[in-house]
Formats: sequence, structure tokens, C-alpha cells
Amino acid sequence: DFESLEVAEWAEQLLLAGGAKIKPKIPKGMQDYRPEQMVIREKAFGIITNVFKRHGAVTLETPVMELKSTLTGKYGEDSKLIYDLADQGGEILALRYDLTVPFARYLATTGDNANIKRYHIARVYRRDQPVLSKGRYREFYQCDFDIAGQYGLMIADADVLKVMSEILTELPIGQFEIKLNHRKLLDAILEICRVPPEKFRAICSAIDKLDKEDWNDVRAEMVNDKGLSPDSADALKYWVWRNDKAFAGEPMEMLELLRNSDLSQHKEAAATLKDLSVLFGYLQALECLHFIKLDMSLARGLDYYTGVIYEAVLVQGEKPVGSIAAGGRYDKLVGMFSSKDIPAVGVSIGIERVFTIMEARANQQMMRKNETEVYVASVMGLTAERFKLCNELWKAGFKAEMSYADKPTTEKQMKEALLNGIPFMVVIGESELASGEVTFKDMTTGETNNTRVARAQLIEMLTPLVEQFRASG
Amino acid sequence: DFESLEVAEWAEQLLLAGGAKIKPKIPKGMQDYRPEQMVIREKAFGIITNVFKRHGAVTLETPVMELKSTLTGKYGEDSKLIYDLADQGGEILALRYDLTVPFARYLATTGDNANIKRYHIARVYRRDQPVLSKGRYREFYQCDFDIAGQYGLMIADADVLKVMSEILTELPIGQFEIKLNHRKLLDAILEICRVPPEKFRAICSAIDKLDKEDWNDVRAEMVNDKGLSPDSADALKYWVWRNDKAFAGEPMEMLELLRNSDLSQHKEAAATLKDLSVLFGYLQALECLHFIKLDMSLARGLDYYTGVIYEAVLVQGEKPVGSIAAGGRYDKLVGMFSSKDIPAVGVSIGIERVFTIMEARANQQMMRKNETEVYVASVMGLTAERFKLCNELWKAGFKAEMSYADKPTTEKQMKEALLNGIPFMVVIGESELASGEVTFKDMTTGETNNTRVARAQLIEMLTPLVEQFRASG
Repeated sequence: DFESLEVAEWAEQLLLAGGAKIKPKIPKGMQDYRPEQMVIREKAFGIITNVFKRHGAVTLETPVMELKSTLTGKYGEDSKLIYDLADQGGEILALRYDLTVPFARYLATTGDNANIKRYHIARVYRRDQPVLSKGRYREFYQCDFDIAGQYGLMIADADVLKVMSEILTELPIGQFEIKLNHRKLLDAILEICRVPPEKFRAICSAIDKLDKEDWNDVRAEMVNDKGLSPDSADALKYWVWRNDKAFAGEPMEMLELLRNSDLSQHKEAAATLKDLSVLFGYLQALECLHFIKLDMSLARGLDYYTGVIYEAVLVQGEKPVGSIAAGGRYDKLVGMFSSKDIPAVGVSIGIERVFTIMEARANQQMMRKNETEVYVASVMGLTAERFKLCNELWKAGFKAEMSYADKPTTEKQMKEALLNGIPFMVVIGESELASGEVTFKDMTTGETNNTRVARAQLIEMLTPLVEQFRASG
Repeated sequence: DFESLEVAEWAEQLLLAGGAKIKPKIPKGMQDYRPEQMVIREKAFGIITNVFKRHGAVTLETPVMELKSTLTGKYGEDSKLIYDLADQGGEILALRYDLTVPFARYLATTGDNANIKRYHIARVYRRDQPVLSKGRYREFYQCDFDIAGQYGLMIADADVLKVMSEILTELPIGQFEIKLNHRKLLDAILEICRVPPEKFRAICSAIDKLDKEDWNDVRAEMVNDKGLSPDSADALKYWVWRNDKAFAGEPMEMLELLRNSDLSQHKEAAATLKDLSVLFGYLQALECLHFIKLDMSLARGLDYYTGVIYEAVLVQGEKPVGSIAAGGRYDKLVGMFSSKDIPAVGVSIGIERVFTIMEARANQQMMRKNETEVYVASVMGLTAERFKLCNELWKAGFKAEMSYADKPTTEKQMKEALLNGIPFMVVIGESELASGEVTFKDMTTGETNNTRVARAQLIEMLTPLVEQFRASG
């Protein structure tokens, strides 16, 4: 089985460590990001960061580890997935499991700075069973955007959903929809169906599976595994499962249906329906309401949500990749660290899945791993002279490189420039040096073209060409 | 004492964890980077990344942790500073101590991709005694640039030193110099002075202290602590300490002195002097030789260096901050993981010290924490209308934000815009909505100026103003 296999591997490592060479390995469920993958990652981060900044967000960074006590009691059953540091004397530490709890801890530590709209792009750690083909790793990036502070009703929530919509629109990943629900609506429904309060969370986590499982399976889990009365389970069906699928639909129509239901008799639920109608009004003003589906079966696993919750899923594309972003309002989390509550709402983009999609698309096209604009070549070595020419180009702000070989052949230099998709080449030989010129090749045209250019005019000649190349990239 | 104090703190944490509130704390020697610090960090990373890219480097990323066996035997005495992960079943893991060993492991794992010029900006982990005032943390950033592969003599080494010079010139941190030496010169000197080979490393690490300590202290360490014969120690003095300071100077002059010394009789040393003269020739072509001092007392602690070694230090400025970048050639490190050696040379920028200097300078001026260009305000609430206007600005690519309050006062909105240094403000009220206009305020002029602008012309009017603002920033 899996665990004893790992022990065997570990024993092998120990044995190997006694010898001279250790076969190099990477930790299970983790990955090196190769240069061609980094290009895609940087592109995705660029798009995302741009949206965050467009909405006026600041950024901050917290340590990769926290006191173990900071993480305790925040993740329910999933706490077993936390990576602990060894006790080497001193503090008891663990690696962060997400970016939300460290953000709440940050708010509680800094205190005064309570009103903040921040983004944080960083890796988090979970000792989960990895499924690399689905982009599920033990170390993975999250892109979080959160708004903390006392504000007007649903205003920050609307801005978070707008940010989420813009990011998912601008990333080249295909169509998506955002399922949305409200914890207080769910609680009201559970109450109306006489679910005992101590079973609320367990039943919610069963309901949350309706996006993948059939009603009968979920009902069986509720009744057989979680001890819910069959009457309560059958009553629940009406609220979460209709026409053989999760009860969900266009927000305004759903609101109308719910307003005409028993929920309108439930004080909290009626108030929540009003709040949702304020939210939907704002989303209409922000032109992103059409991405939203009010989905009564969305429950979200995490303990700390207190208001609106949401999850973005891709609805078409080459393969279904499931949830791609999720979040909600958590008004009580900061209060777990501090004497005063700071309400907050946010979203986390599951960027590894985005990478997987973008990588699959990029494989079909040639990809530049660096940004070099000019390749400096020579006919017979001339290393110091090539360095001089590179230095002139660097000083002018061009990205330039040359072969590190002492006497690279013309063929090898040409190949290096072509393989890296470098658009321009400048060649020197004894004759060029003697006449104070260089030979210039435009590699973008596909034709053989060699022009002699006076060295003193080189920068001036290159500037518009490189600028045009930059603009096209 | 220090260790038992930590245990007491930990016991207190455990007790507190039993109660409702845990006083939030951050791990010892680590830090949250606040938004205003992140602005400086991003600026520094931008400058550094730009230089790396200008030289045609690609980037890659490795996991924050490695198999413990990968790190074992690479750091000498400092191995005790490695952070171990707890044994939770499965692999034995540790946090990376630097970025060089993971890079070597990467090269050995990927194999074929042996010729690579890569940069890597990431945090590393050392259980060292933190000195926060000096920028010494347990979690800190390194910016590494390395060139791996079989190349012409000293060509890659010259490019690394050029990259280092450009970065330290472009970062606003004052004047610096780069101390440079060669492991093979040092070894020759130790041999000439009859230092027993098994003491080479210990004696090197004593010599390396001559930048902070006097010759007599270092001699005492060699003789009393490390058991070197007094004759050997006194012979060493001639090579590393002259005129009451470390024996160092202008590279070409130093080479001339060394060529006329006993070193020219030592085969390896004589060859190394020739290699260094090739390197200095390239650095002259690259216009960065004037930053270099050939310093015979520079030895560097790490085991893995095999050729040229160097260390950049700030030579003036508000306070001396010591070493700010260091590196060298390590031709045998990859071979520790793989059956074939891949030669490599690189540099690591100690960016935390750079941050400390840049932060001290930034404190004197007003700093924008976000990049907002337009603040959207209203006279009497009008939240949905403010959202609509924001959305128009976002669609046009402007960075815009608004208050999240339902009915923010004019004073509060004005204050928010001013505090964040937002250059432009657009205000709507009932009268503006009725006439299809907005009120525009240019906050950069310091004068009271309100202009009414037709809503349909707003984007067109703002575009040149915002572009001008971006260009000036």
C-alpha cells in the first residue's frame, strides 16, 4: 500500500545517503517550475496582479510558517494535512495551509490598520494525496484578494465578485460561471427542515457534494452516515435539488422564487434575501451579474464563512477542471486572534489549474524562455570584442546575449539565436572591426538579409526595430 | 538564558491555546512585509529582474523544501541551522538553506538541460540567531543568478561579475566594491606556507575574518584554536596581511605583484594568475573592472567553491552594512548529485540589506501603497452609480477605487484620496447625473479646481492626464 511504499523509498534514500551519490529527487507532490513554465506563470500573475491593482489593492507578505497554535482549530478535519516543522527547540511551527488565516493573524497583530484591501500571491502547503494530472499538488500557489473593515452593506462583497469576474475573463481559460449562496440562507433552510443544530456542518458538507453526486447518494450519506432523520432529508430535497439537478438559476429569478417560499416567513432568511437583492443590484451596475448563478446546493467546507459564499467553475473547454476560484465573507475569523472582530470578505484563485490549462494551450506554439532582443555573434572568437558590443547594447537598455564559447562557429551561434527566437543579430569579424561597422541580421523576416551598419549608428538604427518588436510581443 | 526563555514562551502559548483567544504572534526572526515595505521590495526586485533579463537569463522555481538528504553535507558546520520538517510519515524533508544547492539538484534531475543561465528570487531559511536591526532574519530573500555549462575560460565568470556590478549600480544603495580571489591561489599559498591539507578549510575560515579582525587575533585563532604551527602562520601573514590591513588592491597591479612572487614558481598558481588576467581583460571590456579589488584575504566559508570567489561590500553610506552580494565558481556541486559534473558559476544578492537601506531612505518621503489613479466620489451615497463609474474607468484600463461606505461624507472621501496620493478625482451627485456630467478635480495641482465634464468625454479627457502621471512616476 501507499504508506509502506513511502517507507521503503525512504529506507532506500537512507541507504543511498551512505554512498557517494544520492539519486536526486524532489519531495512527493511538489514540482520544479521549468523556465518555459515560468513564462506562463509570470504571464498569469501579470494579468491577475493588474486586476488587483486596477481596483486599488495593496499587497503584503507573511512568513511561510506560522506558530502551530495560529493554525489550530481553523480547518476542521483538514488540520491533519498541515505540515509541521520538527521541534528543534524553541517555537512549535507549521507551514501555512492557506493565505486567509495568516491574513487574519496579520490584521490581529497590526491592529490599527483594520481597513485594508490587499492581495497576496504565494504558495501554501497541504499533505494531501497529490493528483498531478489535475493540478493538485502539496505545494501550490494561491492568489488571494481580501477586503477587511466595517463598510456599507454588500459593497466590498460586490467589489470582490467583480475582481473575480475580471480575472477569470482576462485569463485565457474559457468560459466560467460563479455559483453563489449565503450561509444564513443555508442555516435557515436547515432550521426549517428541522436539522439539529449540531449536525449543521456535517449536513452542509453532504449538500456541497450535489455538484458531483446524485441526490440519492447524498441522501444516503445524510441518513445512514450522519444520522439525519429521513423526514428532514426529504424536506431538504425541496430546497437544494429540483428537476434532477442542484436547485440553482439566474439570481433575480431565484430571488423571486425564494421570496414566494416559506423562507419569507423566516426572519433571518427574509433579511438575507433583501441583502442579496442589494448585492445583485450592485453586480448589475458592475456588469458581472450574468456570471452569477444562485445555487442553493453550494455550501463550502470551511468553518469560518459567515455570509455570502461563492465558487467559480469552468463550464466548458477541453476538459472539465472543476472549481477554479472560491471565497466568501468571514466576519468572525480575526476575532479568533483578537479582542475585536474585523469583518472581511475575499476570494482565492486556484491558479495551478489555470496554469495547467494555459500550459496545454501553449504547447502548440513556440515559446520564448527569455526576453533577449539582440544576439551578438562573431566570426572568429573575439570574446572581448563581443563583450564590448553587448555592453554597448546593455547600456542602451536592450536585452542582449552572446555565446559563452571562446570560438563559437557561425552555425552554432545562428542555431542558438533561432532556437531562442531572438529577433535581431549583430555580427562582428575582423573586417567589421577594421571598418568600424557591424553586420546586422533581422531574424524576423525569414529572408537572408545582411546589412552593414556603422557601429556609431547601431543603437539609433536598432531602437525603432526593438520598440516595434516589444510592442508586438 | 535564551533557549529556556523560548521554552517558557512556548509553554505560555500552549496554555493560551486552551482558552478562547490566542495572542497572535509571528515566528521568531521572521517578519510580515507591510504594504509600504512591499512597494520598496517590488521596486528592488524590478531593478534586479530587469538586469537579469537584460543578460538573457531565464527563471525557474524549486520547492521551498527538499529531501533532507539533498541538503546533507553541503554547508559544513552551518548544517545545524537547517529547518527540519517533522516526520509525519513518508519522506524526511527540510526547508532550503540557500538557492544554490536546489539549483544543483535541479540540474542533476533534469540532466539534459545542462547549459542554462537562470535567475531565482525566493526566500531561504536558517535557524540562526536573528539580528533584525542588521537585516538578519531567519526567513529572508535571496536573488541568485547562475550560469551552468561547459564554456570558454572565464567568459561566464565575467558575465556574472558584470551582472553583479550592474545591479549594485542601479540599486539606490550607494557605493560598493567587489572583493575577488581565487580558491586555487589560496590553496597554493597554503601549500607554500606548509599548512597541512586537512587544515585547509579551517585556516581559510580564519583568514576570511581579516576584514573584521586584526592579524594578531586571526593568528591566535590559527595557532591556538586550530593547531597551526607558528612558522606556517607567520609565513601566511606575508600573503594576506600587509601594511596593517588585508593584502588587497587594484587587480592589474596585484597581478603584477603576484607574478613577481614565489607564486610564479607554483604551477597551479602561475596558471591561475594567467586565468585571472583573462578575466580582468574581459571585465575591462565590460567597463566594470574598476569595481574589483583582488583581495588575498577573501576566502568564503562555503565548501563547494572551486575557482574564482567574490563578495561585494558597501564602502560608504549612512551605516556600514557589510557584505551585500557574494558568489563564485562551483564546478563539483552538481557532481554530488549526478554521475557527471556540470561546471557552474553564480552570485547571490543579499537583498534584505538592500531593503533596509532603501527603507531608511524612503521614510523621508511620502509613499503610495497602491497605484490608484482615479478616486470616484459622490455627494449623497449613490453606491450603484459610483460602481458604474468605476466600471467605466476599469474598462478603459484606469486604476480606480471608491469608498466602501454607503454614504461617505465629502470630507472623508477627500481625505482618503489625499492620504493615498491619488492624483485625480471624479465626483457625481444628483445634478451631475441629471445633466450627464461629472465633476473633475486634479489633485496634483494643490489648487481648488472643479471642472464639469460631459460623462461621454471623461475617458478621452483623462487619458492624456493619466498617461502623463504614469510617465512621471
